[in-house]
This record gives sequence, C-alpha cells and structure tokens, in this order.
Amino acid sequence: MAKASTATSTAITSTIPATMRALVLHAYDLGSYGSLTLEERPTPHPGKGEVLVRMAASPINPSDLAALQGAHGGNKALPTIPGLEGSGTVVRAGRGYLARRLLGKRVACAAGEGDGAWAEYMVTSARFCSPLPSDFSDEQGAVRIVNPYTAWAHLQIARQAGAHAIIETAAAGALGQMVNQLAQRRGVRVLNIVRREAQAETLRGLGAKHILNSEAPDFDDQLREQCQRLGVRLAFDAVAGSMTARLLAALPPHGRVVVFGALAEFYSGETINMGASDLIFNEKRIEGFYLPLWVAQQKPLALLSMQRQLYRLGDLTQEAIQVRAPLEDAQQAIAAYEANMSAGKALLMPGKLPG
Amino acid sequence: MAKASTATSTAITSTIPATMRALVLHAYDLGSYGSLTLEERPTPHPGKGEVLVRMAASPINPSDLAALQGAHGGNKALPTIPGLEGSGTVVRAGRGYLARRLLGKRVACAAGEGDGAWAEYMVTSARFCSPLPSDFSDEQGAVRIVNPYTAWAHLQIARQAGAHAIIETAAAGALGQMVNQLAQRRGVRVLNIVRREAQAETLRGLGAKHILNSEAPDFDDQLREQCQRLGVRLAFDAVAGSMTARLLAALPPHGRVVVFGALAEFYSGETINMGASDLIFNEKRIEGFYLPLWVAQQKPLALLSMQRQLYRLGDLTQEAIQVRAPLEDAQQAIAAYEANMSAGKALLMPGKLPG
Repeated sequence: MAKASTATSTAITSTIPATMRALVLHAYDLGSYGSLTLEERPTPHPGKGEVLVRMAASPINPSDLAALQGAHGGNKALPTIPGLEGSGTVVRAGRGYLARRLLGKRVACAAGEGDGAWAEYMVTSARFCSPLPSDFSDEQGAVRIVNPYTAWAHLQIARQAGAHAIIETAAAGALGQMVNQLAQRRGVRVLNIVRREAQAETLRGLGAKHILNSEAPDFDDQLREQCQRLGVRLAFDAVAGSMTARLLAALPPHGRVVVFGALAEFYSGETINMGASDLIFNEKRIEGFYLPLWVAQQKPLALLSMQRQLYRLGDLTQEAIQVRAPLEDAQQAIAAYEANMSAGKALLMPGKLPG
Repeated sequence: MAKASTATSTAITSTIPATMRALVLHAYDLGSYGSLTLEERPTPHPGKGEVLVRMAASPINPSDLAALQGAHGGNKALPTIPGLEGSGTVVRAGRGYLARRLLGKRVACAAGEGDGAWAEYMVTSARFCSPLPSDFSDEQGAVRIVNPYTAWAHLQIARQAGAHAIIETAAAGALGQMVNQLAQRRGVRVLNIVRREAQAETLRGLGAKHILNSEAPDFDDQLREQCQRLGVRLAFDAVAGSMTARLLAALPPHGRVVVFGALAEFYSGETINMGASDLIFNEKRIEGFYLPLWVAQQKPLALLSMQRQLYRLGDLTQEAIQVRAPLEDAQQAIAAYEANMSAGKALLMPGKLPG
C-alpha cells in the first residue's frame, strides 16, 4: 500500500475516490423512512484527531430506528447520514498521534457529531475507533460499541451502587444477552423481563435463571416478590412508558430505575406516569442513561481496558444475522428488522453491490 | 420537683395523671377530618430509650394534613394519635442515658413510629428530642424539627451536589423562607417558585432575589431562561404533579428534581407524567426525599451540630401564628389553616382549655 502524506492528513490514496454512495436522511419521519435515499456525496475529509473509515458493515440498531424518527438524543441538522456504529478500515488520518496510529487498521467505530456510518466512508474522531483483533470479522466488528459498551456500563453502575442483583427489561435482545453474560461472570443476578415465552426460552438457553413475562396477568405481584427474594434495588429499563412505573412500584425502598430506552413510547406513545407518594416516602429514583454521556465521563485508560476485556469475551451474543443488505436495499432491511428484531441482527454492507 | 425512680423509668410523678386527653384518628379521610375525635386515653409509658413529653404546643404542618388523609409515608395502624412534632417538657424517662439526661428539660420533639403529638402527653424516642435553648418559647420550639431539618437537608444535598443555585417550589411557605435564609448565608442562589404575587412580595421582603410565578403565561420559558442564567441544575419540589415534569424540562442536562411533597397530587389528584427522551438523552433524574430517612442516614454528631446552628439562627421565618387552639378546637384550626396556609402557623395547645 502506498501511503501519501500531505500537510493535513495521511492517506492510503489509491483507495479513496472523490465521491461515495451514502444513505441520506432528509426528514425525521414517524413510522416510515421514505426520506432516506441513496445519494452520491463528496467523500469527507478527516480533520485534526479524525480518521476516514472505509465502511465494511454497519448494523441497524434500535437506537438507529429512534434516530431516524427524530426520537434520539442530539438530533442532527438535516440532511444527515444515519448510522451509529460499524466496522471498516482507516484509510486516511487527520493530524494527531491517535489518528495516525490507526491508519491502515481495521476498526470498530462509532459516529460522532457529524455524519454517520451508513455510507461507503465515514469521518469520525479517532477516540471513537478501536482496532479490531485479527480474529474478528468485519461483521462481528460492526456491533462492538453500542451494545457491548452499554452492557458494560450497566454492570459498572451496578457495581458502583453495590448491587448484587439487577433487573433488565427487553432482556432477550442483543443487549440483554450481553448483560446476562457479563453479569454471570461477575456474580450479579439478573431478573430478566421479556414479553414472549419464546424470548424466555432464548434466555434460558444462555443460562439465565430469573425470567418474568410482563404479559403474565400476575406480573406485578411476581415482580415484587422476585425483587424481594433476589434483593433487587436497581433496574435498567429499555421500555419506559408504564413499565418504568411498574418497575419503580415493585422495587423496595431506595429502589432506582435507570431508563436507557423508550420502546413503549416509541411504538405506542406511552409516557411515564406515576404518583409521588412511593417516590417520596421510599426515596426512590428514576434517572436517564445515555451512552455518549457515560463514555464522556470515563477515563481513557478505563475505556481501553474495557475494550480489551470485551474483545476477550468474543461475540457476547448468540444472535444470528438475519439480513446483510447493500446500501441500495436499506429500506427493505430496516423494515425486515423492525418487523422482527428477535430474528437477529440486520447489517448494512456498504461494500456490497445489489443483486 | 420531686423525682421518683422505679425499675423501668424515672419520673416527676406529681405532674402525671393516669389518663390524658388526645386527638384520635379513626379513619384516613380524603377531604374531611370527621373521624378525628377528642378522647380520654391512658397516659403512655416510656420504654427503654424513650421519654414522656408533656406537650405544650404542636403545629398543624402540611405533612400532618397528608398524614390525616393517609397520603403520608408509613401510614400508622388506626386508631392513632396524629401530630408529627411539637414542644413540651420531659416528665418521665425510660432506661438509658440519653433518655434520663432529658428528664425535666423543655424539648422540641418529633413523633416516632407510635402515637403522635396532638395529645397532652407523647412518648417518643429520646433521639427525636432536642433540648430547647432557654430563650425559645414553647410556641417557637414547636416548629423546630420538620421544617428546619428539611431546609437544612436541602442545602446539604445542594452542597454534596456542588450546586451553587437551586430551585425551591411552594417557596413562600415556612419551609421556603427557611431555605432562603440558610441559602443566603451559604452563598447559594435560590430560584423561588410561587403561585401568587402576594407570595412573591413576602419573599422579596426576606431578601429573595429570584422569584417566578408559576401562573404566569410564559412561566416555562422564564424558568428555562433563569435556570440557564443562574446555573441551576437542582430543584426541590413540594408540588409534584405537572410541576415536576415542568421543572425537569427546564433544567439543563444532568438536571435533578428532588420531590419531597405532593401538594398538586394532594389537592387535585395530578400525577407526574413525562416522556422519556429528555430524561434519557440529557441524563436527568427524579428522586424522592423523605425527612425520616434522611435523618436516619445522618451521623448523631452531625445532627447535634445542625441543631445548634439552627437554634443560633433564631426563628428562621417571619411567619405569624394565625391560630392557637386547644385540642377541643382542632377541627376548626385545621380547617382555618387549610383554607389559608399563607396566613401563618396553626398551633394546637394541649395545655390550653377551650373558651
């Protein structure tokens, strides 16, 4: 590979065309993604501390769906390229040691403030990239940030709270599976909440011991009972809406619900509604969790150590890949994933051509 | 005074009759207090670590009204004697150094798990009594726990959070006045929220600088603007209902609302209703505060030091006493206080006879 150096960036020039194909979002749509179109865009240039990644694979995460609908934090000015994370190869680096060190490396990467990962190329901060171990495929590497970091953060918050047992809602998904796996290694019990019996089966197959179905008629009683039996005071909630209030009510005094997703609000407009008495007299607490803010509060060395440990654990889920789509087929891939998230990951493959 | 000592308690015997007059609550009523009746009851006997206080004065606090309606924490088994605090003289002490040390002393006192202060005598833990300085009248001493401790706790929570500015709702009441006074001494800015212009005047008279009227049409905009200008990230909310959500929305990222009262829920059944997005993406937080739990978490020496400092500050409010009622006239006193809390304190005087 021939490397060319200029005043502002270092690149593997032979591989970088002047324009790229990218998915561009023109409007925040509720319920449809009609404004997401495939376009030819100028290939972006990395600034100081930034790198240009030639994208290999990028997942459609639940948080991406929220972002498409404008229900995610820090909505970007439109038009914008969506895609919160992915994997690829660093083909150009801006100034700065961190960025140059990554040149030529395969990385897992997350989008920053600018355009995202659903394109042939993405510029992002070198701090949001982590070199992939050689035994990780691009597909494996595409989902190494959003869910693994979130699962790790949950266990870290539990440790800081001195919690030996936690609740996880929407527990059968990729994130819930990772939380269970990390929790088992740390001796933390997880009370898993799912909505369907098949999801409970999935979790049992992964060694999960405590599972409740929120559709069961006696769910609230069971939840209260299990909280007491397992000593749960801390819940991580991806659902929001009425689930948050039900969790709060079931937890003992000083119980704490960390809300990090809003599936119920997203799909049915449900808000969090609760009386104040239980909150006050049992000094309970509801708080938000947002991964970029959590990451910003961690020390760089702690993040490096986290990445190393997470890579050592391998895939972290037994999720299959239900669809691998070229950028041209993004609409269908999103629809398929949204219709059945339990069927596995959906990956966009910017290097892949249709047909 | 002749002191008589027995195996289980030490008393000033000449002053203690076998029975006492007490207000007894037979049902938690919403909106009326018809089941509160004056009765002749056996005078209770202090156990180990407890004292018998001959009550001089006991206030009707907002939290007492909530307790009468069963909307307070730890509802007691009925029938029960209400009354969360008061002042009086310790006339009998159970075993234990703390209790005996109080014998014969005038004290400010709070009720424990058992019967409360709206009676001629109350048994409570010696830990819930604090000797009154000689220059404090019984009437002044009757309101030295619930509100002063809560105000102190707010400032303490602010200090622990590194907050140099706080919001206080229902700010013109006794508690709000104390918070303003303590905050001025500590250089903490208070953004006061009131519902009427007259209340704003009261606060201005006490030196309060930042006051918003929640009935103003542009309240939410003003609130957001003032939070930014004053650097407020922490709010103490006595109102709950929609106010909690409005406070949360107005606070910047990492904003925190501490709910310690529920006036809106109490008077109009309003619950706390909010979407999850702001909570999540700005990592905001709602939590309950309940004085007995806060006190239980403080070190005994810290509480002693707090009491000393609070006594040194004198009355802490400019509130007048709007009514001094014998136990016989409790119903009228409660009605008068509930009709106009801003007119000043209402005190029950168990030693006073009607007419």
